[in-house]
Amino acid sequence: MSELRKDPIIGRWVIIAPERGIQSLTIETKKNEIKDKDSCPFCKENEKKTPREIFSIKSSTSNNWNVRVIPNRFPALRVEGTLDRQGSGLYDKLNGIGAHEIIIETPDHESDIIDKNLNHIKDIFITYKRRILDLKNDHRIKYVMVFKNHKIDNGTSVNHSHSQLIATPVIPKRVSEELKGAKKYYDYKERCIFCDIIYQELKENKRIVAEEENFIAIEPFAARFPFETWIIPKNHSSNFENCLDENLHHLAILFKAVMKKLNKALKNPAYHYLIHSSPLGMENIEHYHWHIEIIPKLQNVAGFEWGTGFYINPTSPEDAAKYLKELKI
Amino acid sequence: MSELRKDPIIGRWVIIAPERGIQSLTIETKKNEIKDKDSCPFCKENEKKTPREIFSIKSSTSNNWNVRVIPNRFPALRVEGTLDRQGSGLYDKLNGIGAHEIIIETPDHESDIIDKNLNHIKDIFITYKRRILDLKNDHRIKYVMVFKNHKIDNGTSVNHSHSQLIATPVIPKRVSEELKGAKKYYDYKERCIFCDIIYQELKENKRIVAEEENFIAIEPFAARFPFETWIIPKNHSSNFENCLDENLHHLAILFKAVMKKLNKALKNPAYHYLIHSSPLGMENIEHYHWHIEIIPKLQNVAGFEWGTGFYINPTSPEDAAKYLKELKI
Repeated sequence: MSELRKDPIIGRWVIIAPERGIQSLTIETKKNEIKDKDSCPFCKENEKKTPREIFSIKSSTSNNWNVRVIPNRFPALRVEGTLDRQGSGLYDKLNGIGAHEIIIETPDHESDIIDKNLNHIKDIFITYKRRILDLKNDHRIKYVMVFKNHKIDNGTSVNHSHSQLIATPVIPKRVSEELKGAKKYYDYKERCIFCDIIYQELKENKRIVAEEENFIAIEPFAARFPFETWIIPKNHSSNFENCLDENLHHLAILFKAVMKKLNKALKNPAYHYLIHSSPLGMENIEHYHWHIEIIPKLQNVAGFEWGTGFYINPTSPEDAAKYLKELKI
Repeated sequence: MSELRKDPIIGRWVIIAPERGIQSLTIETKKNEIKDKDSCPFCKENEKKTPREIFSIKSSTSNNWNVRVIPNRFPALRVEGTLDRQGSGLYDKLNGIGAHEIIIETPDHESDIIDKNLNHIKDIFITYKRRILDLKNDHRIKYVMVFKNHKIDNGTSVNHSHSQLIATPVIPKRVSEELKGAKKYYDYKERCIFCDIIYQELKENKRIVAEEENFIAIEPFAARFPFETWIIPKNHSSNFENCLDENLHHLAILFKAVMKKLNKALKNPAYHYLIHSSPLGMENIEHYHWHIEIIPKLQNVAGFEWGTGFYINPTSPEDAAKYLKELKI
């Protein structure tokens, strides 16, 4: 069984999952096994090749499913067992309780989700929301990370369009840092820092990529990567899963527009996105504001931070925003 | 000119360096330009192809240099100018004052530094130390990051064995997190957490890779990556640059042994290492302990954290330590 271990110096939790093996990281099947759609376990009519379905949304126009959720075959964390905190000298650990799910975004092997219609994209966001709401019933779970690694080559992932969800019994360090920073700002100003960022960005109009009635897409002021893009709801809201379904339609509109711009500007880059949301036990808080961070992975720039712990970004967010904003899609 | 910008939420500083351009990240010359040693600016007899030399150590057996330091041709930060802090609404920035240097580790194009004799490896560490001590005279500089990216493919680096140094007017987030965590522990226990880690590791003897009179190499308890290895001085010391030259000889012995083991175990992997040391203005402090973090980059495992902010390590540190410890070199 995997184990969660806490770095004693900086308090970062790490999953040690030897049973997954180096070959199984984020994988379901090896790439060369899924060259044709007959053997792809994520394709329609191959449903029996996957573990039992957890959730699905049916298509409104056919009998098929649009979006389907299954457990990861090689989960980093498992739901079975009781949560057991242990110390060993100055070290702390937890057994690997949690969940690791695959969200299959389409029944079609070849299709890029960005080309799907808005209802389909909305269905994906609704799926994320439903899974978070369901996992919330498990009181051992403190956080649900919803993310997508698209074309990020680790030599092992399935091409078929999918995102992932990892539910953890601890709050990931990056999120708790954001919560802490936002709380500090709130304690001083009595305002949400993200709301203030939106206000300043709208006023300065230098880093806005696109806007929609309820959402805004910006290049953040201290962007770590070229073309790093955040999508933020304009009205204050701390938890993604509390977003109304009709609002997820608005999100789908802006998300699709932004992804089309990034795809065109950067020639269909590898990318990842991650939903940053308030932890499960912390709902409707005033100082935090959920958002999506999208990071295109450009081959020649990654690796530097990895080496130094310091980000050097060769593209100013203002230049990137101007370029994306003016780009016709 | 480049600019340092602070993330308003979590306080992370980022260098925005548009003038370097995407092509120039960590580069001196393009790979295809340096296929033969005649054109490599880092080779002996090509010294005139580089910017002016900052420092060098002569060989004791020949007239040539062993180690040579030059400015990076496309620096992320520059020494010229005065440090200027500015606010813009809720954002904070600094102009890009600092230094960015290349440490050429050998005059020979082909040689792997790990195969060099101990005196040569010691000369590299002495060079790091001398450069930090020199940069300390510039009171605008708060931190000097010394690191090496070996075979980490960003499409642009020079093959010729070299490490780098970036001096910054701010303390990098990862370091300030370590300082904060270590301080918290010290305030509670009145002991250095790294000293306690060494004590526990020696007692448990489960994660030790190799030992030497004055240094210990371990796989850390909450290792983020397979075969992540730390080298720590056994006696308390907060600043690398205060290490005596004779002690750097001991460091060279253990460093060479560890790198040879990693090279053999992982078949000459790409790797990076980074010296973690107390900031320049904070000397001989009781709660921090300098160390070197070595991280091999295994192709199929990188990328996951990058996507999620959460590390999943498929190799337990105990397994990695046992394997490396028993490996004959």
